[in-house]
This record gives sequence, structure tokens and C-alpha cells, in this order.
Amino acid sequence: MSGNSIGKEFVVTCFGESHGKCIGVVIDGCPTGLRISERDIQVELDRRVPNNSRVVSERKEEDKIDVMSGVFEGLTTGAPLCALVRNRFANSRDYDSLRFVPRPGHADYSAWVKCGGLGDYRGGGRFSGRATVSLVIAGAVAKKLLDIFGIKVLAYTIAVGKVRIGKTTSVKEILRRKFQNAVRCPDVEAAKRMERAVLEAKGEGDSLGGVVECLGLNVPAGLGEPFFDSLDADIAKMLFNVPAVKGVEFGAGFRSSEMKGSENNDEYLLRRRRIITKTNNAGGVLGGISSGMPVVVRAAIKPPSSIEKRQKSIDLAEMKETTIQVKGRHDACIVPKAVPVIESGIAIVLADHMIRAGRIPRVLREESLNGKNQERKKRA
Amino acid sequence: MSGNSIGKEFVVTCFGESHGKCIGVVIDGCPTGLRISERDIQVELDRRVPNNSRVVSERKEEDKIDVMSGVFEGLTTGAPLCALVRNRFANSRDYDSLRFVPRPGHADYSAWVKCGGLGDYRGGGRFSGRATVSLVIAGAVAKKLLDIFGIKVLAYTIAVGKVRIGKTTSVKEILRRKFQNAVRCPDVEAAKRMERAVLEAKGEGDSLGGVVECLGLNVPAGLGEPFFDSLDADIAKMLFNVPAVKGVEFGAGFRSSEMKGSENNDEYLLRRRRIITKTNNAGGVLGGISSGMPVVVRAAIKPPSSIEKRQKSIDLAEMKETTIQVKGRHDACIVPKAVPVIESGIAIVLADHMIRAGRIPRVLREESLNGKNQERKKRA
Amino acid sequence: MSGNSIGKEFVVTCFGESHGKCIGVVIDGCPTGLRISERDIQVELDRRVPNNSRVVSERKEEDKIDVMSGVFEGLTTGAPLCALVRNRFANSRDYDSLRFVPRPGHADYSAWVKCGGLGDYRGGGRFSGRATVSLVIAGAVAKKLLDIFGIKVLAYTIAVGKVRIGKTTSVKEILRRKFQNAVRCPDVEAAKRMERAVLEAKGEGDSLGGVVECLGLNVPAGLGEPFFDSLDADIAKMLFNVPAVKGVEFGAGFRSSEMKGSENNDEYLLRRRRIITKTNNAGGVLGGISSGMPVVVRAAIKPPSSIEKRQKSIDLAEMKETTIQVKGRHDACIVPKAVPVIESGIAIVLADHMIRAGRIPRVLREESLNGKNQERKKRA
Amino acid sequence: MSGNSIGKEFVVTCFGESHGKCIGVVIDGCPTGLRISERDIQVELDRRVPNNSRVVSERKEEDKIDVMSGVFEGLTTGAPLCALVRNRFANSRDYDSLRFVPRPGHADYSAWVKCGGLGDYRGGGRFSGRATVSLVIAGAVAKKLLDIFGIKVLAYTIAVGKVRIGKTTSVKEILRRKFQNAVRCPDVEAAKRMERAVLEAKGEGDSLGGVVECLGLNVPAGLGEPFFDSLDADIAKMLFNVPAVKGVEFGAGFRSSEMKGSENNDEYLLRRRRIITKTNNAGGVLGGISSGMPVVVRAAIKPPSSIEKRQKSIDLAEMKETTIQVKGRHDACIVPKAVPVIESGIAIVLADHMIRAGRIPRVLREESLNGKNQERKKRA
Repeated sequence: MSGNSIGKEFVVTCFGESHGKCIGVVIDGCPTGLRISERDIQVELDRRVPNNSRVVSERKEEDKIDVMSGVFEGLTTGAPLCALVRNRFANSRDYDSLRFVPRPGHADYSAWVKCGGLGDYRGGGRFSGRATVSLVIAGAVAKKLLDIFGIKVLAYTIAVGKVRIGKTTSVKEILRRKFQNAVRCPDVEAAKRMERAVLEAKGEGDSLGGVVECLGLNVPAGLGEPFFDSLDADIAKMLFNVPAVKGVEFGAGFRSSEMKGSENNDEYLLRRRRIITKTNNAGGVLGGISSGMPVVVRAAIKPPSSIEKRQKSIDLAEMKETTIQVKGRHDACIVPKAVPVIESGIAIVLADHMIRAGRIPRVLREESLNGKNQERKKRA
Repeated sequence: MSGNSIGKEFVVTCFGESHGKCIGVVIDGCPTGLRISERDIQVELDRRVPNNSRVVSERKEEDKIDVMSGVFEGLTTGAPLCALVRNRFANSRDYDSLRFVPRPGHADYSAWVKCGGLGDYRGGGRFSGRATVSLVIAGAVAKKLLDIFGIKVLAYTIAVGKVRIGKTTSVKEILRRKFQNAVRCPDVEAAKRMERAVLEAKGEGDSLGGVVECLGLNVPAGLGEPFFDSLDADIAKMLFNVPAVKGVEFGAGFRSSEMKGSENNDEYLLRRRRIITKTNNAGGVLGGISSGMPVVVRAAIKPPSSIEKRQKSIDLAEMKETTIQVKGRHDACIVPKAVPVIESGIAIVLADHMIRAGRIPRVLREESLNGKNQERKKRA
Repeated sequence: MSGNSIGKEFVVTCFGESHGKCIGVVIDGCPTGLRISERDIQVELDRRVPNNSRVVSERKEEDKIDVMSGVFEGLTTGAPLCALVRNRFANSRDYDSLRFVPRPGHADYSAWVKCGGLGDYRGGGRFSGRATVSLVIAGAVAKKLLDIFGIKVLAYTIAVGKVRIGKTTSVKEILRRKFQNAVRCPDVEAAKRMERAVLEAKGEGDSLGGVVECLGLNVPAGLGEPFFDSLDADIAKMLFNVPAVKGVEFGAGFRSSEMKGSENNDEYLLRRRRIITKTNNAGGVLGGISSGMPVVVRAAIKPPSSIEKRQKSIDLAEMKETTIQVKGRHDACIVPKAVPVIESGIAIVLADHMIRAGRIPRVLREESLNGKNQERKKRA
Repeated sequence: MSGNSIGKEFVVTCFGESHGKCIGVVIDGCPTGLRISERDIQVELDRRVPNNSRVVSERKEEDKIDVMSGVFEGLTTGAPLCALVRNRFANSRDYDSLRFVPRPGHADYSAWVKCGGLGDYRGGGRFSGRATVSLVIAGAVAKKLLDIFGIKVLAYTIAVGKVRIGKTTSVKEILRRKFQNAVRCPDVEAAKRMERAVLEAKGEGDSLGGVVECLGLNVPAGLGEPFFDSLDADIAKMLFNVPAVKGVEFGAGFRSSEMKGSENNDEYLLRRRRIITKTNNAGGVLGGISSGMPVVVRAAIKPPSSIEKRQKSIDLAEMKETTIQVKGRHDACIVPKAVPVIESGIAIVLADHMIRAGRIPRVLREESLNGKNQERKKRA
């Protein structure tokens, strides 16, 4: 497994296992002079595991961020920013019985083949959902960076199982509402039905998937480096690395395959001397380059593989068929947890492409450097 | 636009414009000793533009391959393999009127912003579908390489507009049938309706999209380099770089978001001491690593943007609203053309991951080297 | 051999063999809007093989540049720029006898092992000095780019065999003089002795090496991306890829190892509010980052390996000792040919680091874009 | 500063500052199944700072390794290996007066320009010699990996100031001797004179440089990926990233520039059916590919820039000339400290190229996997 870095200018390298010492990340290429605090990152980490929710697992993870390098006097220095979260409360013994019996739907078997049986199997090891902590940390930095340039990334749930968001929920509404419900869905009515569906599945020892939609707002036209580093291609790559994502689409997506050209094409209009499109079936990306319209992407999340129902599997040590029942506290639906992760992933890609397109300077001078130096000099 | 290379070990770099001198590719990292001829590549190129088809554009492209480096005495040497196709029959004047008026749905506007209006606009320039010739060339080499290891990549059309393939079309059937119809659909009955739908749209000066499905057969378990170079992530990245792709999904894909864990999980079975899964909702990829089951991926293709109907646009030189009507011979449906391109793209990713996973040696010794040298010596 | 690309933003990929169809290069990441003509590149290519010189090989190579993509209406488009030179006059039969007998000093044996005997052995194949044509082409583009920002790269010979340049030759003198002698040495007196030394070695069927020095002038302070992409590290990597380079040093280089700190440290001074150093023992690079002083780098060039004297070798087919005598027209000294190659290599690295440091915009607007568009519109 | 990763398959990413929380490294791509303990790494770290030596700084660094991820049950898992050393004993106040006055010879000024004055200046921050701790950690892992394949990397001092090693010191002697002297020189006699020279310079408030030579033993023929990732090029790149290195040469190096071809060429011989060369002027690398002979590389180390003598500098806040005297405990000669760092750097490059050349499997099976699993099963 040699692919633990992503990005060309804002390069994110991740490490850590579910039941090892920590989960962490190194960000290389973050511009100098970005004001960032551990608090900024902690807020995002806390979003990953909501409290008081019956929908996601009750394990109290209490991920506490520790920035190890790259920040000095509250500003990034341009040196690599390493940050990590130490693991606690992990009960590895729960997993001993699973060592040689791969759980259906999990990475257990494919990872076992790849690592020749030598991987860290405890709690999914490297393949645990906890690995997304790396993304959330890097995403928090990326968001702070994008914020300076007015770019916002916003994800939310649009489907859980067969319950979908109402059609009337517009971008404006999404932005206006504080959708602090357990499923992170901007349609309050649908949210209730989603929660009920999850609890019902949970009651059956089963699980549910869903769909997360994410908007990139105020993304300037011109981001993306085709032929091979198209903006949509890089976003899709990022999202398929998020555990449980099985589909990604932009704008009208799969639906566009059923449309006629005359329906699908987004016509151009001028509004206050700004070029916009009447519709946004393209999802803000044309020819792999952002068009200036909102980036609209959706990710299909499969239902969690850990279910209480008994399933067929193989004892790899004995090479014979057996059955398995996955015990312990598991999420009956990870869609709400996926929301900040997907947001983070997309923020990382946008930050990388903003730098690649030359739209973010290497040194950010929010505060005049001279003024700052004078002040520092006085202190010294 | 600085992203014209893809892959880490089998590295493909592409170049060329629609109405420039050529479209070409450099493959770096192809193992030494692969037997490859211009004929092998030509066959694939010819598949890109079918003859005698009313479905796709009638422009006779006659792409003739020219291998410029990296092959000696019929075998790859390990040095970079450059190959290209010279452009002919291009009528650039057709495009003069489009220079400052972006065609809705095309990359014209986003590329114009990116290049500050200095791009080669003729025939879509770098953003033309012709750029996929690079993929087909590299894909031909990748396929020859995969073939040695028994891996086959097979793409076909499963939907055109609202016409979908019948559910009964199994993988076995797909492999058995010679689906030489104009839409490249293995369901002969559906194929006829697809053709009719395309011709109907064409008659209206309109266009149709569709869905291409692709199988990776005999892909060994263990390919993929998570966290960030998951096999599905790299395939998705490749596919979103193919013009017109707006969605990608693996296995049950978006449908899995509506399933319960107990339905979606693929249970393990033993068949002749080989581990398989009962279902393949995962599409052959678990935790970003191939599972040994067929890789199943689908790409949503939007309808071609060039339609005869009049559409609203902007005159970028004058910054005022105008309308545009795209003339010339255009494809009313590019789905059949996309089939070999998607096949090629996936073959490239699989070749790269086979090498990354250490499963392809740097020197292929199909023929015993000693025997060969002796024979050569005699000739010399 | 999978390392045929270099650079992170100005990415150069090379291909081609000595006796194949061509030697070429793809430049990915060159900013849009750079004015470049085939003439600009041809001038540099012609410098590689001086005419009427008894010092280097008399083979008339007549390398004619052919720009295949990435340039439109005289300006780079931002799309990958592919350019190549077709090979002519190659007499491959000369090399048949060498196929299994590696020439001492050449790459024959190490390449034979790497490629399992399947490489293109004709004329050194991929390991021929002709491969440097790729560097010269890319270097020509890099120089044009650097020129806009006032940066000049200037290489010259400072030693041939045991003949060294006089100490009095200052940078100013070097810049002032038109050193159009056959050895490209700015010290006219030394140049004569160098030429004599080469001809003498040639007469003995032997060869001579030497040292090339290169200056990077007006390189701004702040280039270089430590820890691992230090400016000197990237220049050194580039130079060691040039065939025959066996040593690289910056500023005082190996001599600094004999100095005391008080001698070697370059003290800072202010001159017209610009910070300079009294000496430049650092060679313009401190901590891997340019200091604003001239970059000074020297490369040791070994004597050409092709000599007429009989040498011991191995018959690889028979695995027994034998002797070899390398016939044909060979350079008795390649130092003069190395001068433009080293200049090119360093220009490529500087261009890459200028872009990486955010000092070159993605779109160059030498001419006001609007004015240009208006003019074009009139023409259209 | 966006270049904090090196390598293509064995990828090393470093982070940390001199007076920050830690110095660390992430290794991505280390094969699965390598037995490694914190002890293995600690041994190498301890070598970096010798005890009881009057030659190097007396600061007791006590670097204690902490492996954070990637190792499970004593074996690497294939997941990224993060390891770090926490900083202690740092007295940052010593550096306050230096904030705006760059020390001649240090990176202070060039880094100040690059980071817009916002870098972590304490103790040299990112540019401190302490950053080499990252290399030593990664080097320890690389050495363990190379060891399985019989490859040894061995560095030692051959010059300090003007004192050079005697010519008679052969490789055999170097390997035989336990050169546990303070300057790490295999010539015991020269070592004494070197120590005296350092103490003398120290007495004067001055410092001395030197030359380190490094051997790569049992490196198989065939490593290196020309054109641009030649083995020597990648080694040179690594070494120039080591602070204080100003020159790198292979084999005869700069001396080869004065030799004739007939002197410099290494003739081939057969010894017990193994191909060797009579001499090794090439330093084990031909055409950028290892030849099977020992890799021989030398690095020129400049004298430490921190000296007690008063030097001219600039007050960057006031932009006026001033003088500076660097106080505190400093190394009068870092050559002995550079020895294990250079060894580590070269080990990293060799490990990377061994994997790239397909000579190290992705999973190491020192112990039969089945046996191991059975045993584990019993324990479970």
C-alpha cells in the first residue's frame, strides 16, 4: 500500500491505524501565513462524531487534535504541518475472533491478500473508518485556506436508504437552514423519516446507506488541469477513497445519460456582467475545468458492512467455509459521519487546485508583514 | 493545464490537439520485452471510429498509428514508448465563428478562462473527443500487457437515452455474443431500439447520452494502494477525465445506497478452493483493493453538446448575450465511441496497479533470453 | 526504466533512441502565452553540434526541430508541448559487432542487465549522447520563459583534461567576451591550449574530459523547496542525468571542505538597498534556497568512453573474456557539446522552481489580451 | 516549501522543526513483513550524536524514537510508518536576537525571503541540522530492508579541513577496522590529526569542513531509472538536501575530468563467472544504472556556519548593515555527524531503487506465512 499521499501542491499524506497509537496527517505545501489554531481543527473533528445521536455508534471517541509541526505563533510557516489524534478506548480483543474470518463487505479479505495476512487487523486497522480522521484534519486546514478566497464547501445528506430529500429543497434553503438533525439532512421532514428508517434497520440488526451531496460555492472558473487532473476527476478520486463510497456523480450525473443534448446543455446568460448558466446540469465542471457555477457532486454511500445478522464467510487459516456474526457497537448508518469527511475531501482537492492554478500565493499576507515585524521587534 | 500524465509505474503522458499536427502519447514504465506491433494498436484505433454507422459522425478519421520510440525488433525495450496519429481532413475554418462564443455544454468557456483566451480553439483543440486517441493507443499497449496475465477488459453499452439493456444479459452472454451492432450493446434487441432512438434524436437536431459498463475479468485480488490510490479511486479518476462522463459507480453503485447491509454485503464461498462471493455488489473492489471478483464499473455519458438547435450563449469579446447554432457533422450519440475509450482507460489503470503490486516483472521473458540471443547471434 | 519525467510544475518527459525514428520531448505545465518559434529552438539545437570543429565528432547531425503540439499562433497554449527531431544518417550496422560485447565506460553492460539484453543497442540506443537533444529542446523553451523574468543561464568550459582556465577570468569578462572558440572557453589563451590537448589525445586514439561551469544570473532569492527539493539538489539531479557527468559542486564546492568557517561564510552587505554577499562561496544557494546571488555550479565531465585503443571486455553471449576496439567517428572530447546541454538542464530546473515558487503566472500576458482579441476578431 | 517527500516507491516524507514539538518522518511504501523494532532505529539515532566527543557539540540531545504507526507485532504492515522524536532541552531564547539578523552561511536569509519572514526561526527551525533526524529514522528502516538482500551502506570521513586519509586505506581495511574515533575516519593516524585540527579551529572560535565517502556494497547491477531517475542522480539529489553538502562526486569524480579515456574506462574481467571491472573509476554507476561494482560516492561538507567570530550582516527589520556574533554551543565540525546521515540518505535511495527495479517483493516472507498463522491461531 504505497498510495498514502494525494495532491500536487497541497499534498496530504496520511498514516495511522484504528487501534494503533494514533491517526494523523502531514500537509506539505500549505502556504505560509495561514492563521490556524488547534481549535479550528478540533471543531471539524468534533463534527465527525456527533454527540447524543442514536443514529451513529455510541463509542465516545473524543478525538483530541495535536499539531506537531508547521505552525508558529499561530500561523503556518510553510513547513510541513503534521497533526494527529491519539487513539483511546480501543478494545482490540473484540477483534481476535475475526482475524482469519473476513467480514463480508469489509476490506478484510482483499487487505489480507494484499498484506499476506500480516496487516494490523484490529478494528479494521488501516481500513477502519477512523482513517478518515486524517481527511478531516487536512480538510479543516484546507477550509481555512479556501475561506480567505471566499470558497465554501457544504455537504449534507440527501438520502438514507429509500428515504430521499424533497425536491423543493433549494441551495438557498440549504444555506439558510441550520440542519442540526442527527442525519444532517436540510429537509427537516425527510430527516425525521430518515432517522426512523435507521433506527428500524438497527432494530433488525441491519444497516442503511444513503447519498451525500456536496456543494463547492464561489469556486472560480478555471480550476482543473486536464487531460488527467480534471477537477471532477480529482474530486472523484478523493471521494472513492472514502470508505463506503460506491458511486460519484456531478450535476445531473447518471440522470444526464437519459437526457437529450438540448435538455442537458446549460445555456449561458449574463447577470450583472457575470457569465452564468441557466441550469447547472454540468455540476460546475466543463471539460474538467470549473465553470464558475457551483460545483455539485453526489456520493453514494453503501450500508455499513458490520451487521449483527449471521453471514457466510471463510476461515482463511483452515480454508473452509464458516459463518460470522459481527458483534460490538456499530453504526447502523454512517451517512451522517460521511458528511464532514466528504466536505473535507472536496476542500482538500479545491485547495490543491487553487494553488495549482496560481490563485493562492505562497505567502499569505493578511496582515502587513512590515507592521507585524515592527510589532515583533518591539516585543523582542 | 499541467496534469497530462497519469499512473505511477505505467505512466501515460498525452499531447496533441484536434486540429494540430497530431494526437499522441508517451508511455513510460512499460516493462521490457512486451511483443507489440503497430497493427496491435491500429486495431484498437479502428474500433474507436466504426465504419458504416449512421449512429456516430461520418467524418472519416483514418487514424494511422506511428510508433516513434521504445520498440525494437518487435519488443518494447523499457525506454519510453511514444506513438502518435497525425491529424488529417480537419477543416478549421468551420470553427472561426465559434472563437468567442462558447458552445453550451462544451469546455469552450471554462477553457477560455483557464487559458486567458489563448488556447487552440479549433475543433475543441485540446478538449476535443479526439484527445481520447491517446488513451486508446496507451490502452492497446496496456491490454497486450494484461493479456499475458490473463486479464481481460470488456466494455459495452447498457443504455442509450432511456433505452436500457434487458436484465437477463449475463456476463457469460456478454462474453459469448459478438455484439457487432452500431451501439455496441450485447442485447441485440435493445441495440435496435437504441439505434432507432439515436436516429430519431439526430432527426430532431438533438443528441443522446447513455451508460457504458466495463468488466475487468481475472483481476487478481490485492490490487489497489489505499488510502489514496485505491483501485476504484484510480479507475474513477481515469474515467472522469474521459470527456462527457458525468457519473461513475462500482458494482451496485448508487443502488447500494438504497440497500440494507444484509442485502448489499457479498457473502464468501469456497468454489474449488477458490474464494468467491455469492453476489458482487462491491463490483470487485473492497476497501479500495480488488477482491478477485470481476471489477464492474459503469460510466454515465452525457449527450453530445454539439446540437443543431439554437442555444443561448455569450459573445466573450463583446461581453453580450447572443445565440449559437453548432453546424457541421456531429455525433448524435458518442456512447459507442466511448466504449473502447473506457476499456482503454481501465486497462491502463489495471496495468499500472499490476506493476505497482509487484505482479508484473520489469523484464518479460516470454521467450528464453538465451535462446533468443543465440539466434540473434547467428543472424549477426 | 521508468524515470523519464522531471520537474513538478514544468514537467519534461523525454523519449527516443539514437538510431530509432526520433528524439523528442513533451513539456507539460509551460504557462500559456509564451511566444516561441521553431527558430528559437533550432538555434539552441544548432549550438549542440558546432560546425567546422576538429574537436568534436564530424558527423553532420542536422537536427531539425518539429513542434508537434502545444503552440498556436506563435504562443504556447498551456497544452503539452511536444517537439521532436527525426534521426538521419545513422549507420546501425557499425554497432552489430558490439551487441554482446560491452564497451568499457559506456552504459552497455549495466543497461544490458537492466533490460535483460532486450534494449535497443544501436548507437547506444537510449543511452546515447543524442538523448540530450530532449534536454536542449526543453531548455530552449525554459530559457525563453526565464528571459521574461530577466534570468539568464550561461555555461562555459573551465577545464579540458589538465588545462584549466586562468584565474583572472571574472564573470564580467565571461559575459563580455564572445567566446566562439571550439572548446567554448571564455579564456581565449587557455582555449587554444585546450584545443591542442584534445587534438593530441585524438591523435593517440584517446579522449579527454573537463569541467563545465554554469551561472544562473538574476535568479531571485527564495527559489527551492527544501527539505527534499532544494534548488541545488534538483540542479544536481538534473546534471547527473547528463551522460558523462561524474561530479557536481556549488560555489566553493569541494574546496569549501578545506576552508574554515570564517573563510567560507559569505558576509552580508547592502548595495543600493539590495542585500548581497561579499563573497559567493555558497554559489547562490543557502539551505537549499536561492540567496539572490548568482547560482554557480560546476560539473565534472569524464573523457568519452569510445576510444580506438584496444580494451578488455566480456562476450556476454558466450560469457568469456575478449577485447574490443571501438571504431567509427567519435568525439575525442564532449565538453564543448556538454556546455549547451548543461545550460539547458539548469534552465529547466530554474523554470520549474520559478513556477513552483509562484513567480510565474499560469497565463503570460505580454500583449494585452483584449487588444489581441480585438485584432483577431477583425481578422476573423 | 512543498518538497518534503522523496522517492517513488519507498517514499519518505519529513516534518518537524528544531525547537518545535518533534522531528519526524512518514515512510510510505515499505514492504509488508519487515521485522523492525524501535531499538533498531534508536541505535542509528544514537550514532548521530556521539557521546564523550570534544569534536561535536556537547548538547545532549537524547533523541528517543517513537514509532507511531505501520508496525504490528514487530513487523511492518505495509501501511505508512510514522516515527518521530520529541524535542527537549531547546532553549529558544538564545535565538531571539537572531530573528532579523541572518547568520552568514546559514539559511536564515534565503528562508526569510521564501517565508516572507514568517518562518520558525528558533534554532534554525526547519533548516536546522536536527532535520536530518528524519533521514536517520528512515535510513534505519531502509538499512534493515537492504540487509535482507545483502546490501550494506558504509560511510566514513576521508578528510577534515586539509587533513586527508592516507591513500593506502583500502575498502577491505575500512571494513575490517572498527574506527570508533571521534571523527569516524578509518585511518587511525589521520583521525588523530583530524581531531587536533578541529580542536584547534574550535579554540580560534572557528570551524572546519571535510569530505565523507560512502560505499554501497553488494548493490546488484541494474538499479537506476534513466533518463531522469538515474541512480547517481537520485543519490546526488538526496545528498545535496543534507545541510552543508556543497559537492558530490562518484568514483574518480572531478579527478576523472583530468584523465584520458584509456585511464578512466573500467575494463571488464570475469572472476568466478562474475563480471567485474578492473578499476572502479565509474563508482559503480554507468549510464545512470548500477554496474554491480561498489557504489562509491563522496560528499564535500562545508565548515559549520555558526562561528564565534564577529561577521557582517544585515538587520532585515531596519534594512541596515550590522554585525553578528553567534553564541552558544556549536559544532566546530559536523563531518562526524554527517557520516550516519549520508549513510541513511543513500540507504533510502537504494531501497527505493531496489523496489522500483522489482527486486524487493511487496510482502516479505522471512517466516513462512502459514506456519506463522497457525502459531498465531494457537495463541488466539
